[in-house]
Amino acid sequence: MEKGMDAGLLGEVTCVDFWCNEFGMRVRIALRELGVPFEYIEEDLRVRERSDLVWRMNPVHRSIPILIHHGRPVCGSVNIVEYIDDVWGQVTRRLLPADPADRAGARFWADFIDHKVFSTQTRFFTSKGEEKEAAKEELVEHLKRLDREVLGDKCFFSGDEFGFLDAVFIPFSSMFYGYHQHGGIDLELECPKLTRWEKRCRERESVSEVLPDGKVQYELHKKFYGIE
Amino acid sequence: MEKGMDAGLLGEVTCVDFWCNEFGMRVRIALRELGVPFEYIEEDLRVRERSDLVWRMNPVHRSIPILIHHGRPVCGSVNIVEYIDDVWGQVTRRLLPADPADRAGARFWADFIDHKVFSTQTRFFTSKGEEKEAAKEELVEHLKRLDREVLGDKCFFSGDEFGFLDAVFIPFSSMFYGYHQHGGIDLELECPKLTRWEKRCRERESVSEVLPDGKVQYELHKKFYGIE
Repeated sequence: MEKGMDAGLLGEVTCVDFWCNEFGMRVRIALRELGVPFEYIEEDLRVRERSDLVWRMNPVHRSIPILIHHGRPVCGSVNIVEYIDDVWGQVTRRLLPADPADRAGARFWADFIDHKVFSTQTRFFTSKGEEKEAAKEELVEHLKRLDREVLGDKCFFSGDEFGFLDAVFIPFSSMFYGYHQHGGIDLELECPKLTRWEKRCRERESVSEVLPDGKVQYELHKKFYGIE
Repeated sequence: MEKGMDAGLLGEVTCVDFWCNEFGMRVRIALRELGVPFEYIEEDLRVRERSDLVWRMNPVHRSIPILIHHGRPVCGSVNIVEYIDDVWGQVTRRLLPADPADRAGARFWADFIDHKVFSTQTRFFTSKGEEKEAAKEELVEHLKRLDREVLGDKCFFSGDEFGFLDAVFIPFSSMFYGYHQHGGIDLELECPKLTRWEKRCRERESVSEVLPDGKVQYELHKKFYGIE
């Protein structure tokens, strides 16, 4: 699709994203999980300037992913997954748990992933020496918390079925190879439940078709973060 | 209530908060709006150490507000307001809009308030000179966006009725006096719609009983931020 193309010409459901964007993968996985057909528009984050479409559809943050439904944009990856569940989960199956306390728990951990795991991961990849070691330790602590306290012995974060929190966190598993290469983090040892969960998730078409290869993902992040 | 008191002895609904906490006020306003009786436990944020109750109920962040319902904690102020709406909104009236796109819009702006308005407000109060001027300008831009793009000519953010986004943002109005004192921000001039909305909200018992006086709030923040 060309830049600046009129939003009126967009399909019913359009997802604007970059293929290796951990936040956007959530959206593409959720759409596939609920069987929603969508048009995909690639926004290359390696290019400095955002496209006209992103400027028009997300003028506040100028970030992706963006879901455009009947020409109306929805922004913020967790917000979009909730929207997808609100609109299409009604007719297939819900991604969010039915119980209000479980829903609140899922939202709490989604926020933990966005504001604790992601920021620590960024520090881990961008710092050196002692700071890198501290970030590595903290990152492992966060992952252990998800492994033991949140996932535990369940098949998926949401229970027996792949759901909201699984869609929110599984894109981060595309960084697990990078965790090992960059800091020697042995996730099979540190987080065995999470490792088994990752394998279970990757058996799903919705996940395997969206997640990039760990090596490719790490190479791209090395360039992005300036890691030698 | 004494520190370390067993959670089993808590009432059905308990809110742990500090009286002038902009995030916690949301929760107390939402509970009042939906007519939910609750026990209030004050957590004095001026004391360095968090109470045993907070350590036990929110071990991940050790922050307030916390809503404890039948002994089970819910954390994160926006998350709690959604929970309150999920549990009690069913039997009275919903705080979040019914339409999925409107819900997504409300959640988007709640995130904007938490991650743009609040952080800019903090920079405005904690910096000096050019940085303070830049933060002031940015803060006014954010508020103008809420005034023109989000509120517009509606009575409340949610439409005709006070709802989710109103509960999320009205606590920030307790800082408006501080905005004027600290940086000469004239909100009546810059954001006339927001000023009228604030008055409308303050006519509600749920809001007037929770919001502290602007002068008191500013004095407390001056101490907290070390403003002379």
